Amino acid sequence: MQEMGDKKAVVLVSGGLDSATVLAIAQNQGFSCHALTFDYGQRHRIELESAKRIVAHAKSIDVHRLVNLDVGWMGGSALTDNNLSVPQSGNVAGPDDTQEIPITYVPARNTIFLSIALGWAEVIGAHDIFIGANAVDYSGYPDCRPVFIEAFEALANIATRDGVQGNPFRFHAPLINMTKAEIITLGTSLGVDYSITLSCYDPDATGRACGVCDSCRLRAKGFADAGLPDLTAYR
Amino acid sequence: MQEMGDKKAVVLVSGGLDSATVLAIAQNQGFSCHALTFDYGQRHRIELESAKRIVAHAKSIDVHRLVNLDVGWMGGSALTDNNLSVPQSGNVAGPDDTQEIPITYVPARNTIFLSIALGWAEVIGAHDIFIGANAVDYSGYPDCRPVFIEAFEALANIATRDGVQGNPFRFHAPLINMTKAEIITLGTSLGVDYSITLSCYDPDATGRACGVCDSCRLRAKGFADAGLPDLTAYR
Repeated sequence: MQEMGDKKAVVLVSGGLDSATVLAIAQNQGFSCHALTFDYGQRHRIELESAKRIVAHAKSIDVHRLVNLDVGWMGGSALTDNNLSVPQSGNVAGPDDTQEIPITYVPARNTIFLSIALGWAEVIGAHDIFIGANAVDYSGYPDCRPVFIEAFEALANIATRDGVQGNPFRFHAPLINMTKAEIITLGTSLGVDYSITLSCYDPDATGRACGVCDSCRLRAKGFADAGLPDLTAYR
Repeated sequence: MQEMGDKKAVVLVSGGLDSATVLAIAQNQGFSCHALTFDYGQRHRIELESAKRIVAHAKSIDVHRLVNLDVGWMGGSALTDNNLSVPQSGNVAGPDDTQEIPITYVPARNTIFLSIALGWAEVIGAHDIFIGANAVDYSGYPDCRPVFIEAFEALANIATRDGVQGNPFRFHAPLINMTKAEIITLGTSLGVDYSITLSCYDPDATGRACGVCDSCRLRAKGFADAGLPDLTAYR
């Protein structure tokens, strides 16, 4: 039997509720976790501080890499372009509603993130990569759907030395079909401290949440539906 | 009829012979070219100067972006890890010889590069992305094969807003089945000045080529086979 700590995984940790839960899931499955966080010019850059707190709070993270991704010049999203406003009301599109992809969509974001995770995984000998993508509660982002994760895994095993040599990579998106309430319930059972996570797209300089952006509203509803206290710091 | 300059393309320009040729091909096809160059901690970082010269020499490049890609810490390749030596002799593996992927392979490099190109393309409204990948003369890199380009294109059209909304991206690797001699012959006919390109994996500080690495040997053979003068500056 493989001992705990032998199996390496790369886990994307943004600082949000979902990725904190995924990190707990990967650790609970016995993976030796290598955490990866991206500074991509997001306006909610303060989430990086949450990512550091989440990793510090989690037990036995092997390495935490914070990658400065020089793509903020791209713009094209309310999350990276200060000239665009983060929506504060309106319905959040469902998973099949690809015609209503919101302005918070960041072009190719998860493709870029998973590509770098893949490169790091191959270097360190990890073959499991975890991401907190979610297609249920979420906003109709095309790169948060199961079909995207499957296509990326297929690509990864064509693109890499290990992949073509029969040592494939596996991409795990364990939250992808869960509601926010289910995620919160599971994470709570695994000991996740959600008070140190940040989901807000438009927090203040100290990391307090706005309470009105899509992400805040989904999060608050998740705690309410789960019947658990919402310890989020609102401004 | 669509006028020249209406069709935008993103072209990966490394500073080498292949990407200089691809840029000329894309321009010759009437694309308004947006050039993209990566500083990824490569030991042959001086190639970035060649990339700038190539873009300056080419007519009517709309934008040239030099992206500082913070992945040098990954290591795992002779091209990014100064503790590993660049091979100076031996056979170069062929396209079907995936068991002999050389130490100059950079994990997930083209996946990372194309991901960022895809994000930029979506932001600027380009749907054509050009890369100088080559599977014939080359080194058995898994991410230089036609099957990789096809898999990436499939992924891109699942991962993006434009892709899922029926406005697909096309990935062009026009050199992929050409020999180095054929590439040089074509590029010469399109006016490419190969003297300002740099192929060497281990150049000196002024950008003069070593003449003995895999890439130098393939390049020199290409000029010889094409019957054209090799104006490369060797040290």
